Amino acid sequence: MADGRTTPLCVFLSLLLLLSAANGLEQDFCVGDLSFSDTPAGYPCKEVSEVTCDDFVFRGLAMPGDTSNLIMAAVTPAFVSQFPGVNGLGISVARLDIAPGGVIPLHTHPGGSELLVVIEGTICAGFISSANNVYVTTLNKGDTMVFPPGQLHFQINAGDFPALAFVSFNSPNPGLQITAFALFANSLPSPLVEKVTFLDDEQVKKLKKVLGGSG
Amino acid sequence: MADGRTTPLCVFLSLLLLLSAANGLEQDFCVGDLSFSDTPAGYPCKEVSEVTCDDFVFRGLAMPGDTSNLIMAAVTPAFVSQFPGVNGLGISVARLDIAPGGVIPLHTHPGGSELLVVIEGTICAGFISSANNVYVTTLNKGDTMVFPPGQLHFQINAGDFPALAFVSFNSPNPGLQITAFALFANSLPSPLVEKVTFLDDEQVKKLKKVLGGSG
Amino acid sequence: MADGRTTPLCVFLSLLLLLSAANGLEQDFCVGDLSFSDTPAGYPCKEVSEVTCDDFVFRGLAMPGDTSNLIMAAVTPAFVSQFPGVNGLGISVARLDIAPGGVIPLHTHPGGSELLVVIEGTICAGFISSANNVYVTTLNKGDTMVFPPGQLHFQINAGDFPALAFVSFNSPNPGLQITAFALFANSLPSPLVEKVTFLDDEQVKKLKKVLGGSG
Amino acid sequence: MADGRTTPLCVFLSLLLLLSAANGLEQDFCVGDLSFSDTPAGYPCKEVSEVTCDDFVFRGLAMPGDTSNLIMAAVTPAFVSQFPGVNGLGISVARLDIAPGGVIPLHTHPGGSELLVVIEGTICAGFISSANNVYVTTLNKGDTMVFPPGQLHFQINAGDFPALAFVSFNSPNPGLQITAFALFANSLPSPLVEKVTFLDDEQVKKLKKVLGGSG
Amino acid sequence: MADGRTTPLCVFLSLLLLLSAANGLEQDFCVGDLSFSDTPAGYPCKEVSEVTCDDFVFRGLAMPGDTSNLIMAAVTPAFVSQFPGVNGLGISVARLDIAPGGVIPLHTHPGGSELLVVIEGTICAGFISSANNVYVTTLNKGDTMVFPPGQLHFQINAGDFPALAFVSFNSPNPGLQITAFALFANSLPSPLVEKVTFLDDEQVKKLKKVLGGSG
Amino acid sequence: MADGRTTPLCVFLSLLLLLSAANGLEQDFCVGDLSFSDTPAGYPCKEVSEVTCDDFVFRGLAMPGDTSNLIMAAVTPAFVSQFPGVNGLGISVARLDIAPGGVIPLHTHPGGSELLVVIEGTICAGFISSANNVYVTTLNKGDTMVFPPGQLHFQINAGDFPALAFVSFNSPNPGLQITAFALFANSLPSPLVEKVTFLDDEQVKKLKKVLGGSG
Repeated sequence: MADGRTTPLCVFLSLLLLLSAANGLEQDFCVGDLSFSDTPAGYPCKEVSEVTCDDFVFRGLAMPGDTSNLIMAAVTPAFVSQFPGVNGLGISVARLDIAPGGVIPLHTHPGGSELLVVIEGTICAGFISSANNVYVTTLNKGDTMVFPPGQLHFQINAGDFPALAFVSFNSPNPGLQITAFALFANSLPSPLVEKVTFLDDEQVKKLKKVLGGSG
Repeated sequence: MADGRTTPLCVFLSLLLLLSAANGLEQDFCVGDLSFSDTPAGYPCKEVSEVTCDDFVFRGLAMPGDTSNLIMAAVTPAFVSQFPGVNGLGISVARLDIAPGGVIPLHTHPGGSELLVVIEGTICAGFISSANNVYVTTLNKGDTMVFPPGQLHFQINAGDFPALAFVSFNSPNPGLQITAFALFANSLPSPLVEKVTFLDDEQVKKLKKVLGGSG
Repeated sequence: MADGRTTPLCVFLSLLLLLSAANGLEQDFCVGDLSFSDTPAGYPCKEVSEVTCDDFVFRGLAMPGDTSNLIMAAVTPAFVSQFPGVNGLGISVARLDIAPGGVIPLHTHPGGSELLVVIEGTICAGFISSANNVYVTTLNKGDTMVFPPGQLHFQINAGDFPALAFVSFNSPNPGLQITAFALFANSLPSPLVEKVTFLDDEQVKKLKKVLGGSG
Repeated sequence: MADGRTTPLCVFLSLLLLLSAANGLEQDFCVGDLSFSDTPAGYPCKEVSEVTCDDFVFRGLAMPGDTSNLIMAAVTPAFVSQFPGVNGLGISVARLDIAPGGVIPLHTHPGGSELLVVIEGTICAGFISSANNVYVTTLNKGDTMVFPPGQLHFQINAGDFPALAFVSFNSPNPGLQITAFALFANSLPSPLVEKVTFLDDEQVKKLKKVLGGSG
Repeated sequence: MADGRTTPLCVFLSLLLLLSAANGLEQDFCVGDLSFSDTPAGYPCKEVSEVTCDDFVFRGLAMPGDTSNLIMAAVTPAFVSQFPGVNGLGISVARLDIAPGGVIPLHTHPGGSELLVVIEGTICAGFISSANNVYVTTLNKGDTMVFPPGQLHFQINAGDFPALAFVSFNSPNPGLQITAFALFANSLPSPLVEKVTFLDDEQVKKLKKVLGGSG
Repeated sequence: MADGRTTPLCVFLSLLLLLSAANGLEQDFCVGDLSFSDTPAGYPCKEVSEVTCDDFVFRGLAMPGDTSNLIMAAVTPAFVSQFPGVNGLGISVARLDIAPGGVIPLHTHPGGSELLVVIEGTICAGFISSANNVYVTTLNKGDTMVFPPGQLHFQINAGDFPALAFVSFNSPNPGLQITAFALFANSLPSPLVEKVTFLDDEQVKKLKKVLGGSG
């Protein structure tokens, strides 16, 4: 540019030519168009010409979740269904609010690793490995813990004040399978639940009642 | 070759040259050398010159597993630890023997999908999705069922005779996390188990005793 | 739950709220809808609400394949085209029936590793590596052998009775390229076949006739 | 086949049966149908029955690109937009023409590694690593250089004659982000550019004018 | 378990047998042993028997980074080098502290997507796509924004108070390439910088002086 | 920088602090250290401090390969064994020299897609799909053709002058399995070759002699 051999005008024209070629290259991102059927790799892409900055921003984690429920806790996800901008990008996040006494019950994410950062309060967190080893600790503000993919883990408010954490995942759609709900909040017949868990009939029926299951 | 312009001798020599180049290309496979530390992608490779056909063959699934145990069932794995030939190849297999009345309790494989083929007998098999939907069926000889990655599933002998199945995985090391053992067969403290599962104290302590757990 | 602070009713209501959030998370699986065009990652997903347990079950491997043919053998696949439940799950299976004297001719699977388990009979199986090393063995009932991805391999009935094996793949669509059919069962011109294989003209034309090729 | 026990006719018939099964297996390739929306894994596939050899061939790199422009260079891509046959295959290529004095300015490819082979002329090429280490060299005809994914790199004609190179990528759609164009050829406000680059206001405004940017 | 046919003692023994088999299955995680050489998939694994819960916890993000520097900002990473527990798990995190007037200058992460959550303050953030489109916005407490892999982006404190954010990545080692440092903080010769960026000689030499570069 | 609030000296010092953190992030690349055992993901990395620009440059493709051999052709690879800089980067390249009348015989690359660019001469190239469809064409200077992974393909000099092409792969170690060599250049017993290929005994023995095989 220093030599001034090209005038701004011709530069601009030749640039347009180069850019028009470059326009064809584009799949920097693939904002999900949820009106299409999903595929194993995620949703088809929204047209690039219709994508705006808002597609990459999610403002739904700013407010605390409602913890006035059974578990005194709330999980507010920003997964692909809520935040189509993460489609195809291999990442997502959720907000955890846990009231004093609250718990995110034992669960797994079939689709990826989880990394938790404590923002407020004190959380007792842990996971259990395939070898049945237990890894439990207490996390304070600013502490982070990683949970390997597909393994049982939990988070409990270990303090006297509300706890807040953000958990990120290396999947736009990590899934969430809460063990107690999987066992007791559906129509899986009680004898079958007992058979595959060693639990007593009375216990299974009690929890099915509490968690809204049948059978 | 039809033209006969090259004599066998010179062909053989030039072939050697070509092959000596080709020898450098080799990583068709990576039989695991378990004496090294594992890596995220699997074990370092045994030297190709020391690899024999036996490395790719596993004969340990020919005999039935011993089902005279708590679950009246046995899982005999041919995973990378038993069968180093599958290292890096993204596949493995296990043999399931389930006596009448036996069960493979509720479990997940953190590391991959599972595909079951019934060889003998009748098996009731099922899995529970993240949305807590239940998918259960009865499988007879020759039937196959696929279990998506990371989700809770089980297999029960649904007949009067021993059942035999082979289950394959799209990982050389799929892992196996049996929910009841994860909860009750280790030192996870009882109050913590109760908190994250909603189970009663009495139930938890009873099963900890049965399954060898403490705390 | 032990404290009884929440009544079943409000629990059930708050649970519904939690579940309605969780419903959005779902892509535990992606049963293929074959009426759509395929994508590089597999078929678009059938609506979850329309998925039933039958989608994850394939009963077409229960019957022996018909071995009254040229190779006295049959491959019965449960790949994504036959078994849409494996779509996106990275796994599939096929049944091999090989009559006495029968053979699964030299072939490759472009899309993945293969793991064979012998169920009945005796099979001579082998593969050839890129370095042209040969790995051949005899497999009996219960023996398993792994074939690395993309390499030439074969299976031959090595006994006097029908042989049965199940082969699993770490792909829902592994492909199957039988070398002899690739060479002789299509319109690839004979001179071209001869040029790239070193085979004699007479041999090529003879096999083209046998295998239905032209040119 | 040597035994002649099967006649050509019945062989042909049984072969058809085998092939009709095999037809269902097919996803050897997935030529992109650009009329569909893209997905994170690439475009949906053109019907196999409509695929011809021409889909796998691209003849648009035979002619030199027009280097009478600002950078005295031209990039002619054969990415998925121009060459739908590479869809899903994880590979693509581009032609670089660099006139004497020309330059492919500092840029990155968000989507993959690059491998350059010099066909004619002399090229000064280099990249800068995350640790800000500089790797620069002069490449002559037949030399090849690899550029790790996502890192800043450039190519300059270091001779007195036109230079020609082919660059391949391990992505069908590697993207191309030229730093100067990203900074100066769009509406990114000048104060913002200055803030994030440490450049002077005068410099930024000068280049925005040259490269056609506003703001 | 309900039937009481097995006594606790024999159950415990048979369980041990089952677990000893299960112990061989383990690679739920692969805590990095940084004393070994890295591999393309990450560091070799620490022995499972030496892994403790502390390996999965990182407490180094609790304290603010020191922002008394050129950019009035600090990036505190918890990548695999600082936090070996994320090795092989495809995830990591960093803490951003940005003083009023501070900036995380234009940069890319060669190795993955980034997801930012604002914890305190107001941040102006944006990225530029390959097509040179600009996506910029203002983020407040609790807002999240995703940055596609390998693309130029930046964060600026847009308020009057210190800003705090956590950024997660879908890689244990995402890298960080700050454009200004890549250009001006090393020995890349000034004429070469000018050639590949169109910047003026005076500007380049000024910034090389400021940022500690030579040449 | 425009505000001058920081002096060059303190800037330089604080920059060093930032960079020392950044140094820990580095795995932009992983130049293979071939003195270690390979792993499924490639060789362990050479220390970054010992890496120089030469590691990313391969000058061995500048000279024509020797085509005075059986196939009147030469493949000169720049795979990871010859060019350790491509280790872990998912890309490699090879040079094809084909004399008039020469041929790269029917072969597959187990490990990836191939993309060919003709530099000189005329080449007849083709591949055969799993469905036994044939895709053959004539390529001139500047033409490019893509070969899907794992499928049989070939290249023949279709002109009267030497042909030159570069072929790139989306793997640092794609492998090369030449069908004729796999069948006839090793100790695979002749009856076994005949059984799995339908070839005549005479033909097999003739080619074993020509290509140096035994058995």
